[in-house]
Amino acid sequence: MSKETVYRIDVQFGDCDPAGIVFFPNFSRWMDAASHDYFIQCGLPPWREMQTLPHCIGAPLLEVHTRFHTSATYGESLVVHTRVEEWRGKVFIQSHRIMRNDTLICEGRATHALCVKQDDGRLKAVPVPEFVRAACESVENVAY
Amino acid sequence: MSKETVYRIDVQFGDCDPAGIVFFPNFSRWMDAASHDYFIQCGLPPWREMQTLPHCIGAPLLEVHTRFHTSATYGESLVVHTRVEEWRGKVFIQSHRIMRNDTLICEGRATHALCVKQDDGRLKAVPVPEFVRAACESVENVAY
Amino acid sequence: MSKETVYRIDVQFGDCDPAGIVFFPNFSRWMDAASHDYFIQCGLPPWREMQTLPHCIGAPLLEVHTRFHTSATYGESLVVHTRVEEWRGKVFIQSHRIMRNDTLICEGRATHALCVKQDDGRLKAVPVPEFVRAACESVENVAY
Amino acid sequence: MSKETVYRIDVQFGDCDPAGIVFFPNFSRWMDAASHDYFIQCGLPPWREMQTLPHCIGAPLLEVHTRFHTSATYGESLVVHTRVEEWRGKVFIQSHRIMRNDTLICEGRATHALCVKQDDGRLKAVPVPEFVRAACESVENVAY
Repeated sequence: MSKETVYRIDVQFGDCDPAGIVFFPNFSRWMDAASHDYFIQCGLPPWREMQTLPHCIGAPLLEVHTRFHTSATYGESLVVHTRVEEWRGKVFIQSHRIMRNDTLICEGRATHALCVKQDDGRLKAVPVPEFVRAACESVENVAY
Repeated sequence: MSKETVYRIDVQFGDCDPAGIVFFPNFSRWMDAASHDYFIQCGLPPWREMQTLPHCIGAPLLEVHTRFHTSATYGESLVVHTRVEEWRGKVFIQSHRIMRNDTLICEGRATHALCVKQDDGRLKAVPVPEFVRAACESVENVAY
Repeated sequence: MSKETVYRIDVQFGDCDPAGIVFFPNFSRWMDAASHDYFIQCGLPPWREMQTLPHCIGAPLLEVHTRFHTSATYGESLVVHTRVEEWRGKVFIQSHRIMRNDTLICEGRATHALCVKQDDGRLKAVPVPEFVRAACESVENVAY
Repeated sequence: MSKETVYRIDVQFGDCDPAGIVFFPNFSRWMDAASHDYFIQCGLPPWREMQTLPHCIGAPLLEVHTRFHTSATYGESLVVHTRVEEWRGKVFIQSHRIMRNDTLICEGRATHALCVKQDDGRLKAVPVPEFVRAACESVENVAY
């Protein structure tokens, strides 16, 4: 089972639309921030350093499915709970649950491919390297 | 069959991330813009005027499923093709296809509920009114 | 002298542009967040509640002057130091200094008017009420 | 005198805040888009190509001064009128006026430095090259 991380958001006035609630693309923005933060919290290097490796690795988004359960507004503190739900060959699925205390605001399942840059500059999907997977595994499961 | 509208986007430098490609939440932003534009093009009033009706109607987003086929970058012109894919009782599904000429960049299916505001201020989903559905139907199909 | 507040920002990948540095309108977004946060930290109600008062008060931005000293990038933690620099009749000037540790990234001076809504719905600038000014004064200066 | 370009904006629902008006950092975003568009309209290459030159040229923003005259809202079409107000050694000042028909919404004066990348990777301001200045001059003034 993967680690689960928590990423905190303070909803701003400017994150909200004329209905007074969070403009929904901001939820995608926060899930993306939580996704980057996840790998950092797991001890992996930031995207910037990945890019300088000879066959740099990136994780482009292939697909995302988001369900909105209720709205949120400015002045509220939310948290994003993020984990890797599945490793499947050359892709992995990350889930994000945005909560206000015990209330689920929205949840997203994002499918990413893991890619290396080929000599001709084109991206090619590759199996998830073991060190990436290991870094994301929770200590409890690794323990024995 | 519903009308299909076209909404144009000129991708800006500031819409792109350190990888030099469109930061994906901007695609959600553009699909939302295309969704609002769709109803305007169909002759329905803007959200602002809806809000002033006694039992105002809104169309909160319940769910969205987006697939990313390839990336886009600044300096490119994209178009969003939008239509209503299905009317299903109290919800409707809008589809958005973002194209660069003949290349499909990404596509989204967004499920919206149609709601009225009750006397206590809470939203309640209602069947899609006939005038909304009629406004969105293409002339060709209505014709005979 | 006014209180000075601190508002924290964690710069995200998606806040940065193809040059790999913060896209500058995000600095405006963060200064706006810090401005709202300032009044909350001073004990004043959020904008939402202001709006429900009979002659609601708002503080539209009239002018902003921003200087950029150096760039910032994702993975960095910044803080915005905010204070009221001057109360001048119907306007007040807020200053924001965005720092990365001891390095000044950028600074802004924002001139706001204080307005009430008139019976005809139009805004009218009014002198800053004493309770607003008092709430923003630092304890040290008020003390004796 | 420099060329003046026109850049069109259709204000979206999601560009507006809970007050129902454009959230002001979007004006900065649009001025930046107009600034990039200006140089493209003047026949200069996009930033992407600049970056590949041996001593690539960039134009980091040093300072911006914006005045807000009145608000704008979704459903409105605005235009940004952009020109170079002054060339001054290693910097140039671009002005942007955002209009709704004959109404001035806001105006900004942005000071940019023109930089090359040195061998050690650091930026160094340089005098504006003659080909850049010439490209931005209006035909009428060049004519004789």
